Amino acid sequence: MIPQDMVVYGQNECLIRVIAADAAKRAAEIGPDHVYNFTIGNPSVPAPPAVRQTILDLVANTDPVLLHGYTPAPGDFEVRKTVAGWLNRTYGMGYPPEAIYMSTGAGSCLAICLRALLLPGEEVITLTPYFSEYKVYTQAAGGVLIEVPSDPDTLQIDHAAMEAAVNEKTKVILLNSPNNPSGVVLRRESLERLFQFLRQKEAEYGHSIYVVSDEPYRALVYDGVEVPYLPKLYRDTLVCNSFSKSLSLPGERIGFIAVANAMPDFAEVNAAVNGAGRALGYICAPSLFQQVAARCLGMTADVSVYARNRDLLYYGLQEMGFTCIRPDGAFYLFVKTPEPDAVAFCERAKEYEIFVVPGDDFGTPGYVRVAYCVDTAQIERAMPAFRALAKSYGL
Amino acid sequence: MIPQDMVVYGQNECLIRVIAADAAKRAAEIGPDHVYNFTIGNPSVPAPPAVRQTILDLVANTDPVLLHGYTPAPGDFEVRKTVAGWLNRTYGMGYPPEAIYMSTGAGSCLAICLRALLLPGEEVITLTPYFSEYKVYTQAAGGVLIEVPSDPDTLQIDHAAMEAAVNEKTKVILLNSPNNPSGVVLRRESLERLFQFLRQKEAEYGHSIYVVSDEPYRALVYDGVEVPYLPKLYRDTLVCNSFSKSLSLPGERIGFIAVANAMPDFAEVNAAVNGAGRALGYICAPSLFQQVAARCLGMTADVSVYARNRDLLYYGLQEMGFTCIRPDGAFYLFVKTPEPDAVAFCERAKEYEIFVVPGDDFGTPGYVRVAYCVDTAQIERAMPAFRALAKSYGL
Repeated sequence: MIPQDMVVYGQNECLIRVIAADAAKRAAEIGPDHVYNFTIGNPSVPAPPAVRQTILDLVANTDPVLLHGYTPAPGDFEVRKTVAGWLNRTYGMGYPPEAIYMSTGAGSCLAICLRALLLPGEEVITLTPYFSEYKVYTQAAGGVLIEVPSDPDTLQIDHAAMEAAVNEKTKVILLNSPNNPSGVVLRRESLERLFQFLRQKEAEYGHSIYVVSDEPYRALVYDGVEVPYLPKLYRDTLVCNSFSKSLSLPGERIGFIAVANAMPDFAEVNAAVNGAGRALGYICAPSLFQQVAARCLGMTADVSVYARNRDLLYYGLQEMGFTCIRPDGAFYLFVKTPEPDAVAFCERAKEYEIFVVPGDDFGTPGYVRVAYCVDTAQIERAMPAFRALAKSYGL
Repeated sequence: MIPQDMVVYGQNECLIRVIAADAAKRAAEIGPDHVYNFTIGNPSVPAPPAVRQTILDLVANTDPVLLHGYTPAPGDFEVRKTVAGWLNRTYGMGYPPEAIYMSTGAGSCLAICLRALLLPGEEVITLTPYFSEYKVYTQAAGGVLIEVPSDPDTLQIDHAAMEAAVNEKTKVILLNSPNNPSGVVLRRESLERLFQFLRQKEAEYGHSIYVVSDEPYRALVYDGVEVPYLPKLYRDTLVCNSFSKSLSLPGERIGFIAVANAMPDFAEVNAAVNGAGRALGYICAPSLFQQVAARCLGMTADVSVYARNRDLLYYGLQEMGFTCIRPDGAFYLFVKTPEPDAVAFCERAKEYEIFVVPGDDFGTPGYVRVAYCVDTAQIERAMPAFRALAKSYGL
């Protein structure tokens, strides 16, 4: 009698949250120092001090009627202008303020963009592994998510697989770099090859194929790896950004969509983004944090902690015999499981008080995601447990 | 090539915002003191001082990783427990914490509830006048909005009209009391009659008819008028509440859905609410303001200002010859226009620097909405202009 897809979305909570709840329960039983919880992508590094200072300053010194009042639906105009200017300076773009839609975090960006672009039955292609909610947002917008396996060794684009997947019904290519759950950054030359192919297909089909770039981890990269700015390489691109990870504000739900104004149907796509935001119930992005984001643009939380954690885990686990994908960004390590069944591996890991999530939830069985946005001390404490786990598999 | 309904939603901005922009433009031309802007329902009364103090205290004294971190999707459990406890004490309910879904304001509550409940083509009945976004949320969820005219003199329920509208496809009755745009509060005896009828129809059709109670203005009532708590009167009720008006925090997007746990399919409906929130891209309600709302439950901004404004306008305009619906709550006055075309009336009002919005946008031509959430001084300054406008119609 009521929509069963919604019931199922509500009942089948994201597996990550289920295992995280197990970890929390176990921590209550034996003490948090004895549990190695690598489940959740909640930044462990506090927001930069400037964020706290900015909130205190705004709240103490701004008329609350203005500070907490409605902004226009796509955001406060000065905030949009500031974000556009920053993107233009940073990436050599020419966004007008109207191309920026301040959003309630990256989740809302994706739900809005897909609702704005998809006609019933149209296809969204994404690379495995991918964030599980992509399927939910695609289906809720009436579309079909097509999973294209990445190159199994590098998790870069497998061009043969990608080219085989694109067809007349392809409306969106949804890319996520740095990637959750692998930390992999897509390389410029590989992206250029993909985009050249897409341009050919756009010409052949006579309609646009949009790239939606989900990039909440853009600011979290290591060793100076380049994260190409996709709208510079491909005209029909919508960027979904978020301050959740860069400013360690995941609960505050603040981000933005930038619609590339070079695209020929910019006015229509931009209107549809605004319309989809309206239809999904987003009145405006949270007003205080619109101001905070504008004042803290370009700042990042202290990501050196994540870099240190990555090195400890990546080199440590490899030395134990695990096969790991090298993460260039984000705060996840994607580890090949020594048995094919990653869910079984996660169960065995729990015997060593290690809580990680299976790649199955990311469309990639045979792997687990280790979220290293944790205290470095937890990683150090966890190392003997990982070693014992490795030994139990004869590594 | 992209969904035209979304393009239209984005292009046809809510008329309120268009006229508000006109008013702002005119204020820039001739000075704000010479423009009488009654367009927008943005609270003019600041949040209670406790809100500022609570934000400052939380930001200064809480670990930012916790304060700004993800909460579970339906909200921080302690916050949900606090809200449930407060509802239970205030209205004699028995909500468990699980029945409370912390939301990103009332707009998201409505979009989520309708998405959770409606199958394609099912009907939502609402009374005119009604908030224009009801149609957008209903259509976006695949449903059809049915407008039932209220009694033209009182704007209470016209039971004959309502009973004629209910049919097998009726899934939701969407009620809004105190009402935007009229300020009218639905009376207990009238609600009881409606609910008795709905119970009969539920039995006859063999399926639930849900009441969705949109009540952001519950805390804004005058003269001690009773706003009945609908779940006490009707089992199958979902309450959509918001702190936008009660705490003057409209831009911060914080509210909640309370699903009555007495309903026989509570578990399924509650799961669908969670699932719809997930599908529409709501990861969690803004975390800082979840805490603020929990600590400031039951407080209200100083509504005595609105009461004074209401009296000035209601008695003042009536004395000039206008016919006004008496508002028992909210901060809107609904005025019958002396000519049938409310849009033309709004145009003529502009000649007197008065900016109001036509009832057409609320499904009720022949009226205008006067939002009196403004400085009392603006109302006093506007009175001669209203008088001249009345005279121009020979009132």
